[in-house]
Amino acid sequence: MARVNDHYLKLKAGYLFPEIARRTRTYFEAHPEAELIRLGIGDVTLPLAPAVTEAMRRAVEEMGTASGFRGYGPENGYDFLVEAIRVHDYAPRGVEISTSEIFVSDGSKQDSGNIQEIFGAACRIAVTDPVYPVYVDTNVMAGRTGGADAEGRYAGVLYLEANEANGFFPDPPAEAVDLAYLCSPNNPTGSVAPREILERWVTWARECGAVLIFDAAYDAFIQDPELPRSIYEIEGARECAIEMRSFSKRAGFTGLRCAYTVIPEMLEGTSSTGERVGLKGLWARRQATKFNAVPYPVQRAAEAVFTAEGKKQTGEQVAYYMENARLLREGLAAAGFAVFGGVHAPYIWLRVPSGVGGSSWAFFDALLTRAQIVGTPGAGFGPAGEGYFRLSAFNDRQRVETAIDRIREHFGA
Amino acid sequence: MARVNDHYLKLKAGYLFPEIARRTRTYFEAHPEAELIRLGIGDVTLPLAPAVTEAMRRAVEEMGTASGFRGYGPENGYDFLVEAIRVHDYAPRGVEISTSEIFVSDGSKQDSGNIQEIFGAACRIAVTDPVYPVYVDTNVMAGRTGGADAEGRYAGVLYLEANEANGFFPDPPAEAVDLAYLCSPNNPTGSVAPREILERWVTWARECGAVLIFDAAYDAFIQDPELPRSIYEIEGARECAIEMRSFSKRAGFTGLRCAYTVIPEMLEGTSSTGERVGLKGLWARRQATKFNAVPYPVQRAAEAVFTAEGKKQTGEQVAYYMENARLLREGLAAAGFAVFGGVHAPYIWLRVPSGVGGSSWAFFDALLTRAQIVGTPGAGFGPAGEGYFRLSAFNDRQRVETAIDRIREHFGA
Repeated sequence: MARVNDHYLKLKAGYLFPEIARRTRTYFEAHPEAELIRLGIGDVTLPLAPAVTEAMRRAVEEMGTASGFRGYGPENGYDFLVEAIRVHDYAPRGVEISTSEIFVSDGSKQDSGNIQEIFGAACRIAVTDPVYPVYVDTNVMAGRTGGADAEGRYAGVLYLEANEANGFFPDPPAEAVDLAYLCSPNNPTGSVAPREILERWVTWARECGAVLIFDAAYDAFIQDPELPRSIYEIEGARECAIEMRSFSKRAGFTGLRCAYTVIPEMLEGTSSTGERVGLKGLWARRQATKFNAVPYPVQRAAEAVFTAEGKKQTGEQVAYYMENARLLREGLAAAGFAVFGGVHAPYIWLRVPSGVGGSSWAFFDALLTRAQIVGTPGAGFGPAGEGYFRLSAFNDRQRVETAIDRIREHFGA
Repeated sequence: MARVNDHYLKLKAGYLFPEIARRTRTYFEAHPEAELIRLGIGDVTLPLAPAVTEAMRRAVEEMGTASGFRGYGPENGYDFLVEAIRVHDYAPRGVEISTSEIFVSDGSKQDSGNIQEIFGAACRIAVTDPVYPVYVDTNVMAGRTGGADAEGRYAGVLYLEANEANGFFPDPPAEAVDLAYLCSPNNPTGSVAPREILERWVTWARECGAVLIFDAAYDAFIQDPELPRSIYEIEGARECAIEMRSFSKRAGFTGLRCAYTVIPEMLEGTSSTGERVGLKGLWARRQATKFNAVPYPVQRAAEAVFTAEGKKQTGEQVAYYMENARLLREGLAAAGFAVFGGVHAPYIWLRVPSGVGGSSWAFFDALLTRAQIVGTPGAGFGPAGEGYFRLSAFNDRQRVETAIDRIREHFGA
């Protein structure tokens, strides 16, 4: 009988969000009358912007005509989209990225999960803790870790605690690692890395030869123009960093799927024989072999995000969610919660009140059964997330306000 | 400096199709006046069926409304699509597949490339030769092989020659392996596996504990209703086979991206400690961690393929391509070529004429430069493909007829 990949068996329980879905479904089946408010999974709720649907509708029509039909696309994205990304996402921030360094994909989850494939099996990884589970789980599945301890920490992974003392953005470690995953604005803590911290990370990575995997899926939520939106705004980052961005949250593409990864030409690793190998070429080979481009109508939809209308409409969506974030942040603070994040990110990170026992899954259950609100337990993002809880600002205004009222009623100080 | 995945460095040259694209581009840049006919990459050319574009257009409109918007979808596909697959692709063939055994994805290339991840690193694989390169390359990248020899055979892989003597469909080997990739109707040879051969493969797999990875991406092109379209039409296959199918060729989705994989509940492998582990659960975990569903409008488009109109319209597309295949087959045979395939598959497999030296890349270059036709060299699919050449029936009728004329003129006997 064929042997399975034993590393999968090291994974703790289910992936976080399916587990949340399972508990929610179980509750809802028992209480079909409950008016659930979902602030758990970070999923957008506003309809697609008119500029986006209009571009997509046109592309679908094109595909129905002999002259407009398109089959397999260029695997790293059509020129029109790659060029729009370069011009609109990078040039205005003073960052020179060439279109050949941009790889369009069907999601940052995929990219941040797949990127580890191009690295050696013995590479040591560092993550902040709490962290988006995909970074760790995909390395577990690839065999780069040992088993998990009782708290859920996998042997061999360097966990850097993000806590109240460091503003939920840790400094680089004293030791060297091969790959370090950074996410700013951060999922789950809602914190954002100031320039100085990113500078320290880039300096550290260049010194120890680490590759930074910089997940900027939430960059559009940064409110302060002085804060870096791209790691490449930091001097020297082209020598050490891969960056990922997504249309999911900035433009409501969670159900459409479009994102991209940037790998600078000069970024290198070494082979076992000491040869220098360009990472961009490895990723190109990975994508050419295992991926087959984003649907053409979706690429047209993504391109429309960069038009004047698209920018205005999606900008209003971001502003709407950020107003939700402000209401949550202030409402919960007024109710006596210790609240973090939510200023440059659509996530509120709150300290679990002592009344429910301090465990974040216990608070998940309490919030679900007492206030009919679905959130995300901090422990789901790693051991240092225990004692914290994530609420998403992605919902409609009225539900957010109702949620605040319910939380105040059931958990208020 | 971070170590790269050394296994990538074992890969021979570029992935086949980018290499073809490169040579074609080079030629075209030097001869911009050339009227190229592309029968190389197996890409559809007919516009999307009206039923498909209409369903997709409606879904895009829905996504632009507050009530119709959908964010993250169920990662293995919406119920409406999974159920349609069960009812239309399996039930009519007498195959009982449960919806929980169906995993919708963005392509059979992805699925057939990713499936190896759930198996152990030491698993031995068998492939037919010639073969769709993704099966082998993804195992090379995962470290399941040694380096390639001068002919391009990777150490550790069992190659089973598909040749004229066995009708381009080899019997199972005498020895045991862990994973065997089968593709029927076959890419690249255009052959189809008769029931008896599939029965022998299933018997062999059950006896030696192998898992068959059955790629049925071209099942819609089978003309004879007696030929199996699913491996599950063979008794016992549920205990040993994973099946993949695609909307790419049957409904022109190469630019839309939708496919699915079936993993029967009862299919198992073993862990290093001898524990039996369900493969379905491992794949579900893989997909939950590294994938994020197919775009909602694309799933609606795929669903529309199963409507009465959709079936009729896409059936006409398949018939159109199969008429091209007949013309190519008969035209080339009349011109003195030894021609195979093309009866239950959209690919013609021809013996390279001795005049050009017998090498399939030499014939590629000759066909490109003398007849301005892009085909696919058999050697690109493996050493046993040397001396053969693939022509695709995906093109418009007039171009196919012109191609036949040009081949007759430049290469005819």
